[in-house]
Amino acid sequence: MRELNVELGERSYPIYIGEGLLTDIAEIFARHQIAQKSPLLLVSDEQVASRYMAPLVETLRTAGYTVVPAVVPPGESSKSLAVFEQLITTALEAGLDRHSTVVALGGGVVGDLAGYVAAAYMRGIRFVQIPTTILAHDSSVGGKVAVNHPSAKNIIGAFHQPELVLYDLGTLQSLPPREVSAGLAEVVKHGLIWDEAFVRWIEDNSADLLALRPEALGYALYKGCGVKAEVVSRDEREHSLRAILNLGHTIGHALEAVAEYDELLHGEAISIGMVGAARIGVALGADEEVYTVTKRVLQACGLPVRLPAHLDTDAIMKAMQHDKKFKEGRMVFIVPTAIGRVEIRQDLSAALVRETVDRLKEEA
Amino acid sequence: MRELNVELGERSYPIYIGEGLLTDIAEIFARHQIAQKSPLLLVSDEQVASRYMAPLVETLRTAGYTVVPAVVPPGESSKSLAVFEQLITTALEAGLDRHSTVVALGGGVVGDLAGYVAAAYMRGIRFVQIPTTILAHDSSVGGKVAVNHPSAKNIIGAFHQPELVLYDLGTLQSLPPREVSAGLAEVVKHGLIWDEAFVRWIEDNSADLLALRPEALGYALYKGCGVKAEVVSRDEREHSLRAILNLGHTIGHALEAVAEYDELLHGEAISIGMVGAARIGVALGADEEVYTVTKRVLQACGLPVRLPAHLDTDAIMKAMQHDKKFKEGRMVFIVPTAIGRVEIRQDLSAALVRETVDRLKEEA
Repeated sequence: MRELNVELGERSYPIYIGEGLLTDIAEIFARHQIAQKSPLLLVSDEQVASRYMAPLVETLRTAGYTVVPAVVPPGESSKSLAVFEQLITTALEAGLDRHSTVVALGGGVVGDLAGYVAAAYMRGIRFVQIPTTILAHDSSVGGKVAVNHPSAKNIIGAFHQPELVLYDLGTLQSLPPREVSAGLAEVVKHGLIWDEAFVRWIEDNSADLLALRPEALGYALYKGCGVKAEVVSRDEREHSLRAILNLGHTIGHALEAVAEYDELLHGEAISIGMVGAARIGVALGADEEVYTVTKRVLQACGLPVRLPAHLDTDAIMKAMQHDKKFKEGRMVFIVPTAIGRVEIRQDLSAALVRETVDRLKEEA
Repeated sequence: MRELNVELGERSYPIYIGEGLLTDIAEIFARHQIAQKSPLLLVSDEQVASRYMAPLVETLRTAGYTVVPAVVPPGESSKSLAVFEQLITTALEAGLDRHSTVVALGGGVVGDLAGYVAAAYMRGIRFVQIPTTILAHDSSVGGKVAVNHPSAKNIIGAFHQPELVLYDLGTLQSLPPREVSAGLAEVVKHGLIWDEAFVRWIEDNSADLLALRPEALGYALYKGCGVKAEVVSRDEREHSLRAILNLGHTIGHALEAVAEYDELLHGEAISIGMVGAARIGVALGADEEVYTVTKRVLQACGLPVRLPAHLDTDAIMKAMQHDKKFKEGRMVFIVPTAIGRVEIRQDLSAALVRETVDRLKEEA
């Protein structure tokens, strides 16, 4: 088992990564004084619940916990105020109190939703994340929790750090290949913003990662979470540095907004976005290698690098202007200056961005 | 103008108390770098808005602010997730960004609601409180913001400290007498938990307070906010000490839950609750004076001390057990040990509490 500490003063917490951790959960919970007397809300989605909920409930009940299971439909639509309110109602009816814990068993949607319930219920109760996707390694570090508004993602939320994150590599074995790749996009991103050696390692080990070999997967998650933890511990509330985690996201979010549902997964959209950011980096003077390596490592992970030609450039430009990372009307771009190094730019011309978006349609 | 600082490290903020402060608001906002480029959401209720909204909007617009007014119906029913969502929609449509500020102009309902919007929007933007009731002196210190769930008050919320609180004594002059008294209940509470001399002062100056004389009123708010600030700065997240602010609230909240809407205002319910707490204190060994002085100062402020006889004791006892201040099934009571001193007790017998509730029906 690997262990990583997210350093946030009195809000510090550990991430445990390993095989079979769900079997040992009672011991880990005991170590963290997760209250047994108060009911525990266990949130999952239908897909994840069908595989892992029953044994987990059984393990926790055997260990003396009062478990209140709550299963929501899979997918982004569950990150709504309506589902949030249902979970609050469930928590109230089950008698959750200030010493209760909310446990998120699932991917990013479940983590964000359950985390916001934990943040809001009685103004904040304890929260444990059990991510079951690779992508969720990203959202499980940093305490950003939220639900969506019909016209804006993640607009209603909080910063609420978990007590601990428990990553059981066994739960990742059932991921479909497309989601494995999409999840690796955020792993690659963590390399690209912070750690050149890790980028090279990902490229060399991409086959093992795609095959979900536990040793490689555990290391990639450990390193990916580690970069994120390092950045977040230096800037918990995203005053400045934390913005670098948005590499690929300015374009990526716009693509998600413009593409049909499911045409582009989040990881796929930011993969294309990172290629765009690399192109901008090169246009602003970075070595050409920044672009070629970025593209190569993403492709090695089975990710798309070309923007579907039918997505309208005007619509993408407009969507970018609605992003909440806008600062007083200016686009904030994270731009690579070298492999493993980025800078925050607010001075990019709309013309350069537009040209970059257009060229993304020609990547091969 | 009086100025008081709420000491909370990097979340510290000042409370300004004085006459005519709304006229000087642009200067105060400038001092606190309230952003002019980003839209500002000004939340109020219909009653308060009809008196103070238009001139305030005018003053702020003249000073260069883009003001987005949002008026909600008066009363507790506006502290709902539905109204919260409407305000988030308004904020989104008006283009509020991370540098925007939410300003609450009104009493506790508006402050709690607008504060929760500020806490949740983009995971937290800046917040300014302009309380227009005496009662709101209490909720304006400490950063507790929330909306209600149909079956529990303040269950969905956050700790979100304002940038500043601006108390313009002019806005209090239109308060109806019953609300003046109800507001003074929390002022008296702050004396009873922390400051005997202040309790004596309130009793001596109750006529001036009821007449809303600015000098007395300003001092009472300054002292009331000061006690609350002192307590909150020692225990921001209510781990322990902050619980003493609940003096009178265990019984008081139960009375509010059982009484018909509007039969008892919050301040009236906690006035009766504080008499109950004082009786319990005496039963546990405090000097009889704790009870007599508590009752006398509350009556001097025009507050009820007798529990309406038709309120069912069983129902009150049951409501107490649903209070979120319950700790693993035990009632938490704040019990006076002397005037200006209280202790936190979790060991009271249900029999003593029941007997106290019954005796409250016989107070004269």
